[in-house]
Amino acid sequence: MVKKTIDPDRIGIYPGTFDPVTQGHMDIIRRATRIVDHLIVGVAINAGKGPMFSVEERCELVRESLKASGGDVAARTEVKPFGSLLMHFAEENRSSVIVRGLRAVSDFEYEFQMTGMNARLAPNIETVFLMASDKQQFVSSRFVKEIARLGGSVTEFVPAPVLQALQQKLAQEKE
Amino acid sequence: MVKKTIDPDRIGIYPGTFDPVTQGHMDIIRRATRIVDHLIVGVAINAGKGPMFSVEERCELVRESLKASGGDVAARTEVKPFGSLLMHFAEENRSSVIVRGLRAVSDFEYEFQMTGMNARLAPNIETVFLMASDKQQFVSSRFVKEIARLGGSVTEFVPAPVLQALQQKLAQEKE
Amino acid sequence: MVKKTIDPDRIGIYPGTFDPVTQGHMDIIRRATRIVDHLIVGVAINAGKGPMFSVEERCELVRESLKASGGDVAARTEVKPFGSLLMHFAEENRSSVIVRGLRAVSDFEYEFQMTGMNARLAPNIETVFLMASDKQQFVSSRFVKEIARLGGSVTEFVPAPVLQALQQKLAQEKE
Amino acid sequence: MVKKTIDPDRIGIYPGTFDPVTQGHMDIIRRATRIVDHLIVGVAINAGKGPMFSVEERCELVRESLKASGGDVAARTEVKPFGSLLMHFAEENRSSVIVRGLRAVSDFEYEFQMTGMNARLAPNIETVFLMASDKQQFVSSRFVKEIARLGGSVTEFVPAPVLQALQQKLAQEKE
Amino acid sequence: MVKKTIDPDRIGIYPGTFDPVTQGHMDIIRRATRIVDHLIVGVAINAGKGPMFSVEERCELVRESLKASGGDVAARTEVKPFGSLLMHFAEENRSSVIVRGLRAVSDFEYEFQMTGMNARLAPNIETVFLMASDKQQFVSSRFVKEIARLGGSVTEFVPAPVLQALQQKLAQEKE
Amino acid sequence: MVKKTIDPDRIGIYPGTFDPVTQGHMDIIRRATRIVDHLIVGVAINAGKGPMFSVEERCELVRESLKASGGDVAARTEVKPFGSLLMHFAEENRSSVIVRGLRAVSDFEYEFQMTGMNARLAPNIETVFLMASDKQQFVSSRFVKEIARLGGSVTEFVPAPVLQALQQKLAQEKE
Repeated sequence: MVKKTIDPDRIGIYPGTFDPVTQGHMDIIRRATRIVDHLIVGVAINAGKGPMFSVEERCELVRESLKASGGDVAARTEVKPFGSLLMHFAEENRSSVIVRGLRAVSDFEYEFQMTGMNARLAPNIETVFLMASDKQQFVSSRFVKEIARLGGSVTEFVPAPVLQALQQKLAQEKE
Repeated sequence: MVKKTIDPDRIGIYPGTFDPVTQGHMDIIRRATRIVDHLIVGVAINAGKGPMFSVEERCELVRESLKASGGDVAARTEVKPFGSLLMHFAEENRSSVIVRGLRAVSDFEYEFQMTGMNARLAPNIETVFLMASDKQQFVSSRFVKEIARLGGSVTEFVPAPVLQALQQKLAQEKE
Repeated sequence: MVKKTIDPDRIGIYPGTFDPVTQGHMDIIRRATRIVDHLIVGVAINAGKGPMFSVEERCELVRESLKASGGDVAARTEVKPFGSLLMHFAEENRSSVIVRGLRAVSDFEYEFQMTGMNARLAPNIETVFLMASDKQQFVSSRFVKEIARLGGSVTEFVPAPVLQALQQKLAQEKE
Repeated sequence: MVKKTIDPDRIGIYPGTFDPVTQGHMDIIRRATRIVDHLIVGVAINAGKGPMFSVEERCELVRESLKASGGDVAARTEVKPFGSLLMHFAEENRSSVIVRGLRAVSDFEYEFQMTGMNARLAPNIETVFLMASDKQQFVSSRFVKEIARLGGSVTEFVPAPVLQALQQKLAQEKE
Repeated sequence: MVKKTIDPDRIGIYPGTFDPVTQGHMDIIRRATRIVDHLIVGVAINAGKGPMFSVEERCELVRESLKASGGDVAARTEVKPFGSLLMHFAEENRSSVIVRGLRAVSDFEYEFQMTGMNARLAPNIETVFLMASDKQQFVSSRFVKEIARLGGSVTEFVPAPVLQALQQKLAQEKE
Repeated sequence: MVKKTIDPDRIGIYPGTFDPVTQGHMDIIRRATRIVDHLIVGVAINAGKGPMFSVEERCELVRESLKASGGDVAARTEVKPFGSLLMHFAEENRSSVIVRGLRAVSDFEYEFQMTGMNARLAPNIETVFLMASDKQQFVSSRFVKEIARLGGSVTEFVPAPVLQALQQKLAQEKE
């Protein structure tokens, strides 16, 4: 899918857990494709303490949400699971740019430690932070799941395919 | 217990885990009753990873601590467990004000995300933050439990009924 | 304008420089009137290093913006300049609630020091923080002036009366 | 100097006061040229309260430091003063990427407000943040000037041309 | 006053503007004398934009407040103005420990940049941070002056000699 | 090893989990021995959710790393496991100084709450914070383990004995 002549500085990786992908993530994806020619959404296989969706489901939900959003963004983005070190995953994909979303209420400690460690592991790979747009400042996968589990509406916070998947998953959990 | 003529803008909810209630919480309760006519202390049924006290015990400890503190505050406060979405709990109780304590060392990320999500779920319910008084800036349930478990004195940090309950609970744990 | 029987806990003060008032301020005013019965917008006479607008102009712009916003909010709000200690101003106005806006990117150092000092000066006056809505998270008077001075459009960030006043003021400055 | 076929998404602006340029700035410039094809260092004409160096001097020091650093970076970077709104400056230069350095101890309030306001003024222009490398986390123009004025050595913190210029400027100030 | 055999690691410098010294500063001084054998309170000659008190007055107020506090602390502390680079001042005084107060609402940006720059200027001089006690978390010289100027009581926030000096200074300002 | 005449203010405790000890910890140990005469590295028996190394292994790795670093630091440092309350551990060891590392991206909430609670439990024991040097700002045990588990190189971040132990432990985990 990567265009032949593409320059490593033009391939970006947007890593995350995406459990599930939110409108906040979609916003960053859309904006990241303006900075790089080709974007790889890297879905972490190991998603901490018991993710709601399997890695296959999480990848599929990003893909469907991209399709639903349409346009140029989907054409320039691909979705891949990864279980290796982020810097190795970047190298394997000939990428030299890592993209991270930054919210005014980010977990800066985690972000900056990870970025600082990565910079020492692979100094030729740059991490760029894109600030979430104001409407997405407070949206997080964690709260989306919490709200959905308690019967609240998350329509505004997630793409349509995720909304449907959440409802199915929660119906299964209750059985 | 709610006065008949009470206006929704005059009923506040102070939600939390209260595992167990501390002098920091009591300070916020006392101050919140100055802002609203009637305060409902909402004790979350789901209290994360293994609370020390059951939801019934946590409710009871808030009630006893209120009684011990006496005066007008207890008369204007009631304690209720809740397992639903906070915004639904507020609506069920005809409340339109959520009260949160704010410390200089709060977990701002969590507070602001929750408040931002809630504002979008129920725009007619306001969240107000009250700053903990200086003496209570560093008191937290987490450290109270940690200190008590290691045999330290927490007399200064919790109301008398909680002190007693902590000692009993720790004696049981050791058996 | 204050209702006869009003309780001090029902009169709030929203202090600030308002140089000039923004949509962010209007958002907090609107929300504060849900918490208190009567709101006094206190416009600081001393506005730091050379305000753009005089205290009379700043008061007038808040008043006009309130009128333009219409409805219940304007009816329950009055605007007063003040040059005294905030806690004295509150006492003179029989208010026991100070309202402050809180953004995820607030100057917490200033906010918390001021609130902490005020709590020790007048322990019976409460400061409540209301979080700016997501759309207003990044709006500030400082940037409004900076952008307007450089010929950018601030239509989205300020009420109509302020927009007009800014244009007049800048035309005068250029003369 | 801009290549004919260059895409607006490939032209970046790195705005600042650069009073004077430090090794921290040079680090960000070097890294930014990996993200964009062409970088414009935008030196703000209006540099707050009395800059040490005139805008011409500040531009010249960036240019000389680039020349001294040599290689590909200098070839892909140009230096321009600007007195207009940043978003206008970007549009005039057909750039759609603003680059900002981010330190763990940044003035987040200023950064996030500026970025948030800019995103609303010109939604098609992206701001990307690059984290300063660990060695440059604490370097700032402000402290460089303060240390140099008091006779401390700033050799490690600034490029050679700046070191010389600082010594001349300070000699003049003393006369 | 320095004991003959004193080790550089046992001489601490507590630098600041002290315009004027507060109970928060006195708290740090008292605690710093537990960490070092001899403490030099370094009063910065250059105190930013127009200090309220001259450097002689500021030194004298620290000395009088120390005397008033009595005991061992005063005996192990001396007060000196300084106009040079902090690291040079430390070396001249054979000190290898800089003491800084840290509040939960400190200006971390300033503190960490200064400490980071100093560590590179003089790697053999350590900066140690002592956390202000909870009662002093919100006390600052800036607010003390602001409150006093507006006629508020600062009795709780400053030592007795400062209270008197503030009143005299303000009476002079009004003349 | 403790000198007979040692003063409690000259014995410091540096508490932590050290799972495993990093170059960041070694940097703080080295600097702490300049502030105190004798340093006890207190290795917490209870290290949260499943530490990688047992408390004996963690102690041993600190001891070996000290030996490898050589010089005066090792001679003035001893390593002890502790399972009691930190303030009790300090008292048992006649120490009145707790040492904590502080990074620009520290978990301030945890640090300040712990320090504030400890100050109230044992007001005569001081906590001093030492800022990590710039090279160690982003190093943490958590990321060291994460990177090592994924096959990345952590040579730069840990002392030689830890590097070896990590490789053995990971080989065992895979079996």
